[in-house]
Amino acid sequence: MAGAWWEQACRAPSREHAARAQARQAQLTKPPGALGRLESLAVELAALQATDRPRAVRVPVLLFAADHGVVAQGVSAFPAQVTVQMLANFASGGAAISVLARELGLPLQLRDVGTLAEGAVPGAIVDKPRRGTRDLSVEAAMDGRDVAHALDAGRRAVDEAGDADLLLPGEMGIGNTTAASALACVLATLPALELVGAGTGLDEARIAHKRGVVERALDLHRDAIAAAPSPALEALRRVGGLEIAALAGAMVAAAQRGVPVLVDGFIVSAAALAAVRLNPGVRDWLLFSHRSAERGHGRVLEALAAAPLLQLDLRLGEGSGAALALPLLRLACALHNDMATFAEAAVAGATPA
Amino acid sequence: MAGAWWEQACRAPSREHAARAQARQAQLTKPPGALGRLESLAVELAALQATDRPRAVRVPVLLFAADHGVVAQGVSAFPAQVTVQMLANFASGGAAISVLARELGLPLQLRDVGTLAEGAVPGAIVDKPRRGTRDLSVEAAMDGRDVAHALDAGRRAVDEAGDADLLLPGEMGIGNTTAASALACVLATLPALELVGAGTGLDEARIAHKRGVVERALDLHRDAIAAAPSPALEALRRVGGLEIAALAGAMVAAAQRGVPVLVDGFIVSAAALAAVRLNPGVRDWLLFSHRSAERGHGRVLEALAAAPLLQLDLRLGEGSGAALALPLLRLACALHNDMATFAEAAVAGATPA
Repeated sequence: MAGAWWEQACRAPSREHAARAQARQAQLTKPPGALGRLESLAVELAALQATDRPRAVRVPVLLFAADHGVVAQGVSAFPAQVTVQMLANFASGGAAISVLARELGLPLQLRDVGTLAEGAVPGAIVDKPRRGTRDLSVEAAMDGRDVAHALDAGRRAVDEAGDADLLLPGEMGIGNTTAASALACVLATLPALELVGAGTGLDEARIAHKRGVVERALDLHRDAIAAAPSPALEALRRVGGLEIAALAGAMVAAAQRGVPVLVDGFIVSAAALAAVRLNPGVRDWLLFSHRSAERGHGRVLEALAAAPLLQLDLRLGEGSGAALALPLLRLACALHNDMATFAEAAVAGATPA
Repeated sequence: MAGAWWEQACRAPSREHAARAQARQAQLTKPPGALGRLESLAVELAALQATDRPRAVRVPVLLFAADHGVVAQGVSAFPAQVTVQMLANFASGGAAISVLARELGLPLQLRDVGTLAEGAVPGAIVDKPRRGTRDLSVEAAMDGRDVAHALDAGRRAVDEAGDADLLLPGEMGIGNTTAASALACVLATLPALELVGAGTGLDEARIAHKRGVVERALDLHRDAIAAAPSPALEALRRVGGLEIAALAGAMVAAAQRGVPVLVDGFIVSAAALAAVRLNPGVRDWLLFSHRSAERGHGRVLEALAAAPLLQLDLRLGEGSGAALALPLLRLACALHNDMATFAEAAVAGATPA
């Protein structure tokens, strides 16, 4: 797969804009550093957008949905049909991400990259190589063509979203914490114990069962993944999911086009880890929104050296955690762009010690 | 002072509305609890506002400014004149809270409750018993009439703000982390070492000096405070500040009128601790926005049994941290009010274990 589009170079953030933004922050009417993470956020966005006026106004939500063969193993608190039902709920405006997108003025692009639906869910773009993955605990989840299609679907979603200040990827897929756990175990070389959690709400007994399923998958696939020419791609194919591969493709494409990405919770973070392993230049373009209540999220964030903005015990997915963090980015930009400097406001600076 | 207005009963939150909100959360199309803190926030606001549709639309910022005699001891990185200069900056729109209020659509009420200004700063209401406090490290910061006037000024600010879904108190006062530290030491029975921090940006040597100043103040006032009929009131008078007393008065008045308060950082939290000690019923009405980078804030939050929403290394004051958290409250309300239920969206529930 050498020469695949996802291996092509990502844009580089602008160091000059970072330096100018840093200098401006030091002149604004506040003690230096007093706006904490908001200051570094504004500087980072200025560098990524190569602008003196960073903004997070146009932020399309790219929501990828797919199903998972591993649900047959009883790994989820909800039945597989909920994936398609929720896709319809996203479209009709009743889901959390629908409400958040409406409140925040975000275009919501729904993309069925592999649900079990036979027809099209009204309001969703169909762009799928197959209906659901195979059961990753007994065989590879996808063929090579499937995973390539899913990565392409992510890229297409980015291109169809048009101009964006920032992209906000989300996901829906009953069973996808199992796939994301297996993927993260392989990519970060961690045991299932540290990654497998409650997902949509398993009790401890069912978490133990889910852990056993992931351990079987790891035993089955680990050696073949390590021996593959692109282990990250092979991991996506064998233990990933169609929406997870699409998320990874979208993040690579965004980084290649120079568009920052606001990363949601456990699933999107696991896909981000895959994207960074496919193409390390992706990492610069990722901003992290929140640390979720899902057990494995902290370990995935560590593997990405990520420090998210929020920690609110969220564990919903859909891009909802990223949407909840978006106002902080918008306000960081407003503060950076619109505050007066000490000189403009005729305010005295700090007295020397 | 028995019989003072600030000792009169606060409203009680509505248990029926809390129970109904909790029941509604369980029916919304998401795994139970998946929206984490956003769910409990919506339930809490429903109980406080005694409504089935909680909201945080009309949120006046009440910004109290005052000066501190203790600045003569060299406890701040900025000169005292900055208090008045920043008050003008708030009014002309260049400060952080000005930008945030504009972006979020918040009315900004500026109240000079004790700055050194001789005249009125344009755009600010003057409601002060004196220009600055006395130096709390050598004598009581205020007379009994001063502290009563400042508490009243807080109540007047609440009444002049009119109808509000939530109040957002902020403050400005060079030297006020010193007063807030001394106040919190007395009210929470903690040593200066745990409360005194960098304020607007002291280095470790100047923090040590500031700690010494607070320790002298504690040695001077502690016994008299403990022996007073109302130790909280006496603490405000001896080691507090005019804006800190006004904040405490505003919080008591809000709780008496049944209006929730979104608490900002270290100074507002110290004032909240004083308000709760003046009148324990205040505590129910306080929502906590963020844990700041100021050393003592964590201890004040512990004394209030408070778990704030954000931790972003903020240390600015002005109400800025509370303003940054406000979108979370607004989105929590939108999710609570506007999401579809499982029945409405025809989505299947969890499968039994």
